[in-house]
Amino acid sequence: MVAGPARKAPPFSGAIDPFSSVAEELELVEQNLTRAIRSSEHTLTEIASHLIHGGGKRIRPVVTLLAFRNFGGKEVEDIVDIATAIELIHTATLLHDDIIDGAEVRRGKESAYKKFGLKATLVTGDFLFIKAFEFAGKFDDTVVQWTADACARLTEGEMLQGFFNRNTDVTFEDYLEIVKRKTASLFQTGARVGAYLAGASPSMVEKMDRYGMNLGIAFQMIDDVLDVVGHKEILGKPTGMDLRDGNPSLPIIFALHERQKAVTEAFECSHPTNEKIRQAIDAIGQGRAVQQAKSSSKDYAERADKVIKEIPPSLYRNGLKTLVQLIIERDF
Amino acid sequence: MVAGPARKAPPFSGAIDPFSSVAEELELVEQNLTRAIRSSEHTLTEIASHLIHGGGKRIRPVVTLLAFRNFGGKEVEDIVDIATAIELIHTATLLHDDIIDGAEVRRGKESAYKKFGLKATLVTGDFLFIKAFEFAGKFDDTVVQWTADACARLTEGEMLQGFFNRNTDVTFEDYLEIVKRKTASLFQTGARVGAYLAGASPSMVEKMDRYGMNLGIAFQMIDDVLDVVGHKEILGKPTGMDLRDGNPSLPIIFALHERQKAVTEAFECSHPTNEKIRQAIDAIGQGRAVQQAKSSSKDYAERADKVIKEIPPSLYRNGLKTLVQLIIERDF
Repeated sequence: MVAGPARKAPPFSGAIDPFSSVAEELELVEQNLTRAIRSSEHTLTEIASHLIHGGGKRIRPVVTLLAFRNFGGKEVEDIVDIATAIELIHTATLLHDDIIDGAEVRRGKESAYKKFGLKATLVTGDFLFIKAFEFAGKFDDTVVQWTADACARLTEGEMLQGFFNRNTDVTFEDYLEIVKRKTASLFQTGARVGAYLAGASPSMVEKMDRYGMNLGIAFQMIDDVLDVVGHKEILGKPTGMDLRDGNPSLPIIFALHERQKAVTEAFECSHPTNEKIRQAIDAIGQGRAVQQAKSSSKDYAERADKVIKEIPPSLYRNGLKTLVQLIIERDF
Repeated sequence: MVAGPARKAPPFSGAIDPFSSVAEELELVEQNLTRAIRSSEHTLTEIASHLIHGGGKRIRPVVTLLAFRNFGGKEVEDIVDIATAIELIHTATLLHDDIIDGAEVRRGKESAYKKFGLKATLVTGDFLFIKAFEFAGKFDDTVVQWTADACARLTEGEMLQGFFNRNTDVTFEDYLEIVKRKTASLFQTGARVGAYLAGASPSMVEKMDRYGMNLGIAFQMIDDVLDVVGHKEILGKPTGMDLRDGNPSLPIIFALHERQKAVTEAFECSHPTNEKIRQAIDAIGQGRAVQQAKSSSKDYAERADKVIKEIPPSLYRNGLKTLVQLIIERDF
């Protein structure tokens, strides 16, 4: 039991769970998501639900909500709508990604593509994109433009990644270009829109944009590492998917630069055997690639951290800071 | 040479080419479309251009523009933006449709799917959806909601059509449900938004909605007929695609009801041979299915015509009327 007056907000210092400090807002996002995927066509709802209620971490909504609250944002409904839109866009791209990669597993479950087939999965992805814009389209021109730009960058990132598929010429700089577009753009837009809708100054909005971009890059780098060292039980997907699909992940790029023969062979091969992939993963593990990728991730996490020091302190700023740590230390 | 004062607008009576009466606005739509598909990723632009500049009839933009002008709409930029959005949405669905159907040909050319592959085509479809919302997202909540609703209905129509794929239980009522969602919704929304943005009364907006819906249904019915009787040279696509893909087109449905054995067999078969398709098309030609489908199309065209009589007369109303005729009499 707590003596004295009930304390509604946790103190300003110390490690704060970024999720619990915006728990109420996140609950509203969940309600929005459930409502958004209702359709007279039950298959659309079923497939969308398979992913929406399939264990997403909701990191993009959390970034958006924390950025909003940190700058004193009050109109909860607005920020919840845009956080919903961003999660819907993310989910739509996951559905379309699974088709592109022919993925059989997603978040520890059979992928929608495997379970429901190409057609239904493709159309459900479109449906989620549309629902996202239903939420985002209510805002002013600036927010609509930023959201549309983020989505356009997502598709450009997909294209660029396709260009470097099984392409051993890929460099770290190419990788950054892909990741900035494909992954960081939604983090970036969430953070930027959060600050903007809270009425933050243009310079603060730009800072939050930088925070989101660096956090997103760090996030993707760890995702790439987990694909090489993660365990299927924890991660919900088998390791080595990037090698199987020929996606230029960061450890793969570093290993290619180390001239790891097994990695080059598996990466270049259009249908590498499980044995080839195992050998390549072993080779990556023996070299410095994983360590280098983790170190790159830490580098971008520090850039995100540096921004945090430049924004006003609050309980939510602590959440933004903890989120950076959680993201680079995660094993799922 | 014309004597007397130059006449800027054609007279109010007589058959008016619906395209030429909004030629300037259509030119602005073309410029918008060209601008919309620019991307730093050239493949996105190339694939989008393949379709956008690949001989589309621009019927949906024309409906939108004529509806706007008929009710005295002046702000050309607004209506041009929404007409652009509608054409972009239509094009996005064509790209995704070609993936779903595995189509090899579209508008007389190799389909984007065949030429550029699944991944690039899918992502370009997403890109066009996003660009559409960039145009549509600038409008008030009502227009955003109507546009998003139309898109959601499109995806529902796709799902419903998938449910009736190679399903001989499909009825005329099922067909109408599919077509209302999959085809008519964009015609309907274009007509409705056109009237709304011109400041038409709610009852007039509803009438234009009805016009668009009936026109869209008539349009799809003729499209279905052309797939059975059209010539590849004129139509730009081979005949019999609906039979090949198992899509329940109107002539197929009528032929199934006539218990045409060759049609049932080809429709139910997951990979019908060219010979089977030819036999089925011959069987359809020998029965009353094509005539019935044409007659249904005429019926819906008349419903669209009936609405025309209830809206204020103008040069543009004549265009809307001529459009109905053009659509049901077309052979391409």
